[in-house]
Formats: sequence, structure tokens, C-alpha cells
Amino acid sequence: MALVVQKYGGTSVANAERIKNVARRIAAAKDKGDQVVVVVSAMGDTTDELIELACQVSKQPSERELDVLLSTGEIVSSTLLAMALRDMGYDAISLSGAQAGIRTDSAYSRARILKVESKRVVKELEKGNIVIVAGFQGITGEMDITTLGRGGSDTTAVALAASLGAEACQLYTDVDGVHTADPRLIPEARRLDEIGYEEMLELATYGAKVVHPRAVELGELFNIPILVASSFTQNPGTLIHGGVSMEVRNKVRGIAYDLDVAKITVVGVPDQPGIAASIFQPLAKAGVSIDTIVQNASINNITDLTFTVAKSDLAGAMRVVEPIAKSIGARQCASDSKLGKVSIIGTGMQNTPGFAARMFGTLSQHNINIQLITTSEIRITCIIDETRVKDAVRALHRAFEVEMEE
Amino acid sequence: MALVVQKYGGTSVANAERIKNVARRIAAAKDKGDQVVVVVSAMGDTTDELIELACQVSKQPSERELDVLLSTGEIVSSTLLAMALRDMGYDAISLSGAQAGIRTDSAYSRARILKVESKRVVKELEKGNIVIVAGFQGITGEMDITTLGRGGSDTTAVALAASLGAEACQLYTDVDGVHTADPRLIPEARRLDEIGYEEMLELATYGAKVVHPRAVELGELFNIPILVASSFTQNPGTLIHGGVSMEVRNKVRGIAYDLDVAKITVVGVPDQPGIAASIFQPLAKAGVSIDTIVQNASINNITDLTFTVAKSDLAGAMRVVEPIAKSIGARQCASDSKLGKVSIIGTGMQNTPGFAARMFGTLSQHNINIQLITTSEIRITCIIDETRVKDAVRALHRAFEVEMEE
Repeated sequence: MALVVQKYGGTSVANAERIKNVARRIAAAKDKGDQVVVVVSAMGDTTDELIELACQVSKQPSERELDVLLSTGEIVSSTLLAMALRDMGYDAISLSGAQAGIRTDSAYSRARILKVESKRVVKELEKGNIVIVAGFQGITGEMDITTLGRGGSDTTAVALAASLGAEACQLYTDVDGVHTADPRLIPEARRLDEIGYEEMLELATYGAKVVHPRAVELGELFNIPILVASSFTQNPGTLIHGGVSMEVRNKVRGIAYDLDVAKITVVGVPDQPGIAASIFQPLAKAGVSIDTIVQNASINNITDLTFTVAKSDLAGAMRVVEPIAKSIGARQCASDSKLGKVSIIGTGMQNTPGFAARMFGTLSQHNINIQLITTSEIRITCIIDETRVKDAVRALHRAFEVEMEE
Repeated sequence: MALVVQKYGGTSVANAERIKNVARRIAAAKDKGDQVVVVVSAMGDTTDELIELACQVSKQPSERELDVLLSTGEIVSSTLLAMALRDMGYDAISLSGAQAGIRTDSAYSRARILKVESKRVVKELEKGNIVIVAGFQGITGEMDITTLGRGGSDTTAVALAASLGAEACQLYTDVDGVHTADPRLIPEARRLDEIGYEEMLELATYGAKVVHPRAVELGELFNIPILVASSFTQNPGTLIHGGVSMEVRNKVRGIAYDLDVAKITVVGVPDQPGIAASIFQPLAKAGVSIDTIVQNASINNITDLTFTVAKSDLAGAMRVVEPIAKSIGARQCASDSKLGKVSIIGTGMQNTPGFAARMFGTLSQHNINIQLITTSEIRITCIIDETRVKDAVRALHRAFEVEMEE
């Protein structure tokens, strides 16, 4: 008897009809003779509606209270799913993140899972129950409720799969897998049958929203194969795992984009030790997440330091950076909030020259100006004007089409 | 420094504006220098909406899951209220029923409070926090969430007040106190400044919805004065306590009514020991709450047994009673679901004759037929046709008006 962890996203449980549909899928898994643990997100737009309510009563809602508030969304969907299963004659029980033993640190709104104390889940499985766990949430050592931030339910599912020694972790969502590019943008984008953890990590980090990088990281760490598939179809989905064959790996695998990019440039910074720390430590303290950092070659010991943040963090970041820039004698502090980024990703790029050249050439042919470039071993990212991002994705998908054939 | 427990009902926190209004009232109590514990109900119609959702996914929702689902309503309002208070600069923290130590039995949907482990509440009060507790809910020894049924938040408030040794328990709602009759029905009904526990218990049990009998019972048991007042006005409300003066007690205090009455009559029952038990034990097992029971004087060892239930319980009760009636040789089993009841209540009735006569006379003058009569020491209740209940309340309020003057 194998153990399977399934996760269903918010659109998959957006209303009573869809909850019943998901219940039927879970029942089918149970009928195969497997033990089934299900992680569920909040129904549809519940989380956004709760945030809206919080903002109506408070200009800056307390993070501790906001986490308790948001955690109710997943409690609601988990109980409804358990009811629907019981209505079909299956033994099922819902557990909150706390009851399922998801222990986290106390970083409200972005808590990290410290460990999973799965005793209660195991006990309920042994009783023959399908166990429905409220995703996205955990509990601190002081018994206060936390939420895990973006991608939280994916992370809950993979963490539970790791702790329970599950055979498979299946993330069901509203798209039928991982594609070579966003299929809403590129109709000819193809679904990938499989992809390696690292490639998926880069794709997810650089804009593919189908699965959260934290979940992929955790999957890689514990070597849990993760299936990403649609809850609305019977299509096979994409398997993220460590055993993707060399041949398949030797390609550009996907193109990711992200429209949520703002840039800050500190111009004329003295190039001396400690300067970067003096800027980035206060930003970290203020909770601003930095994405790309680029420092130009220094001329006469004066350099420019450029970094990108989410658009919503730009104003806060500028408030932190401007006084520091002044105090270290920088010439000025500039920002641009109308940017996006486009990335090509594939382990095949690692030992094969020419990918960067072809990427830059393609963008140039389409008259798209590159503002920043960053690379990893298996990724090349260009930061460009936000209005040209979709053109860039289309052009690059065409240019690398051959490589993406399997 | 005194400790005050306040409770705010669902209409008082129905939207963001009202939550902020309630926050201002709580802040005013805190500003007086008191420690403040607040119990809050779910916003507006939240509970009904959640039940509706449950019924969409399941014909007969699991009681365990339904309790977890419903408990989210009070979690939401408690966090929003804490946020609103923090936004005003007050230290406040929300606690779930479980966190506040409301320990109950495991009778889902109608759990009884076994004890209150108030350590966490006391700790938060000592830190200077206003403590907002989600009402209507508790937790079993197995850490499963329960709800307390109708009037649950009132009960939470009085239980907390008792356990914390609070100086006062204030129940804020959408009416400004306890009246001589339902003011929506009888515009000339007067608010009572004070009322004794027993009178209030009878009034509440026999139809006055302003405060739940369980809460009154608990208040009497621990001698906690309970103020019932409006959260929308500064009116003084009604104080329920044990020290109401003899003079004030020597009156008919109020008229209660209830339209939710159905009657079952088992006709031609052999009058022998054990017959009542054979009917009422299975009904109790089936979870049917029996209200009034009347057994006529026996003629030739054959009697009629009549009892009343809530209208929603009638069909279920008939399914239980009909086969039993047959098996004990009763002649027939009849039911009537179109009934209501009207009661006059007051400790003054205890030693003063004539109240019953005047009540029956008044109903007779208005051509209202009495189907059943039951009395307690301080109450007379008549069960009548549901279409005549409001006429009866009006007529009785007029007839006993003099007695109700204070």
C-alpha cells in the first residue's frame, strides 16, 4: 500500500461543484488502494478577500493577526472537502496545519517549516481516513498560527510527502503541467513530460507560476518526485524529478518571464569593501527581497550598483536606500518601475556555447533593448522594458523552438 | 484595576465600519483602566453562509467537520477586531477558543464547556493586551474543535468571566436590553433596568432571544452580573443579577413568545410505569429536544401523552415515535406543526393568585383557543395556534401593563 500526497490549488476548489469534482478524483486515488493525504488551498479568491477585509479595518494589519485570519481560508476548504468525501461514503477527516504538525518559525506571513510532526496524520491514516490538511499554514512553538507565504500549499504538500515517506507528491492546479513558455502567451508552447529539479527551480524562480520554487527546492532536498497536473483533465502533467535523462536535459527547456520588476541604481558609489553590505543589510532588515544585483566594473574606484526588487517594494526600498546613498557619498539614486524580465532555462546550456549570443541577437532583431543581464549555469536572464516582455517571450520561443523539441 | 468581559454579537461586527465602532467602544473601556477580555461572534450572516456551503457539498455534513468550518467565522471577526484595535494604538491579540482554553465535551454542534484553562488569557492580559476571544467554540481533550450551539458566544463570555473572576460581563447586541415584550411586536414594550436570573432564564427559555438561557444559567451559578445592552447606542441596558429588590420582583416582568412549536400526541397510551421512558429515551438518543410534556389524567388506565418539539425536529421525532406507539398499543399518533407559545413571567406570580385566571380570560376574550398549558413557579405558558401568537402577546401586554410599571 503506497502513500500519495495530493495538493489542490484555489481554482480547483473555487466552489461546491469543483470541490465535489476534486473529491471524486481523491476517491479514485483511494480506490486504487493507496493511503491518501490531501493538501488544499483556500477557495478561489478567498485569501484576497480576507486581505481586503483586513485593510478595511487597519491601515497596516498586524502580521500575527493577518496570519490567523488568512489561515481560515484553507480551514474552510479542507472541511468542505472532507464533508464531500464523507458524503460519497469515504472516511475522511480535515486537519488544520497545526493539527497536522506543520511546525514553523515565527516569521509571520512568510514562515519557514522547521519540521513536520506527523503523528496525528499517521494515526488518522491508520484508521483508514483520507486526511485533508489545510495548506499554507503552520504553528509556532508558542502555539501561534503562521502562514507560509506565496506557494505555501505547494510547500506544505512536499514537506508532508517528505516527512511521511510518500511515494509521490501530486500538485493539481488549473494548468496541465509545466510548459516551454506561458501557454496563455504562446499558444504553441508545449507541455514538458518531465523536467529536472534545477531547471524547474530556475523556471519557477524566474516567472513560471505553476509551482513555487520553495516546493521544488524541498522536493530536490528530499528527492520527492513532484507531478504537476490539471485537476480539470486527465492529462498526464509534468513530472519534476532527479532522473531526467541526459539526452532530454541537453536542451533549452523553457522560457520564463516576470512583469513585476523594478530597478534601483545607486550611481557613483566608492568601490570599497563594506559598501554593498551597508546597502543590502538595511534592505533585508526592512523585509525587502532583492532579486538581481549587478555591479559595473569600477573606473577610478567609482562604480554603479544596480539591483531589482518587486514593484510593490520599490517605494519602501527607496526610502531605505536614499539616505544611505547620500551618507556613502554616491552621486545619485535612480529608479525605474516599468521593467520586466525574460529568461531562457535549460541544463543543456551548461557546456554549450552560443545560447547567450542567440538570445541577445534575437532581442536585438526585435529592437528590444537589454537593460541588465544576469546568468546562472543553466539560465540567462535579460531585464527589459515591461512593454516588450511579451514580444521577447514570443521571439525567443520561436528562436529556440528546435532545441525544445523532445 | 478591574477585569471586564465584553461580548459583541454578529450584527455588531457585521462589516468593517461596525468592527471599527466596536473597537472604539472597547478602547473606551480600556481607557478607564480596566483589563478587557472581548468575546466576539461571527460577522453578520457568516454562520448561515458557511452552513449553506456545507449543504452544497454534502446532504448531511459531518458534525465534526461542520464544527471546524463554523469555528472559522469567529476566528475571522476576532482577528479583524484585534487589527482594528492595534490600528488605534492599543495592544490587542486574538485567541481562538482553543487558545483561550475553552475545553468542552465532544458533543459536536452543541458542546458543553467542561472548564476554562485561562492561563494564556491571563498571560496576555498581564502583558497589557486587550484579549479578543473567538466565541461559540472550544476544543476537546483530543484537540478537536467543537462549537457550543445556539447562544454559544454568550456562554463563552459568561464562562470566561466566571473563570477569570471578572467584575462584570457585558453582552452587547443589536437591541438595548431586555424588554417587557418583543419591541418589534409591541412598540410600547419597555426596557427593564434589571431582572433576576430566574426570571431572565424563563424569559429566555420561553422565547426572548436577547440572551441565551445557558449563559443566564451559568451567570446564576457563578453569581456573575450580566449586562445586556446595545453596541449601537449608549443606553444603559438591562442588568441581570441576583440582587433585584423584592418590590421590583413582585410583578409580571415580561411576555415571551416562540413561533417554533410543533406538537405530537400519542393517543390511548396504557398508563403504566416505563411507558414515558420507552418514548422519551429513544427521542433523546435521536437528538430531539423535547420542550413541554403533558400527560392527561388517566381514564380506565388509558391516557394521552402530548409533547412539543421544534418544528424542524417534528419529522424526525415522528419517525421515532410512530413505531414505538404501535408497539406499546397506543391508539394513534397525531401531530400539529402550526403552533406557537406565549408565556407570562415574573417572580411576583409566585405567591399571588389570579395571574393564570387573568391570562386565560384575556386569551378567551380574544377568541384564542388554548391547546396546552404548562406552568413553573414564575411562569405560565399557553400553546396556541401560530397565527394567533402575536395577537396574544399584544393582548397580554395590555392586560398586564399595570403590573409591569416599575
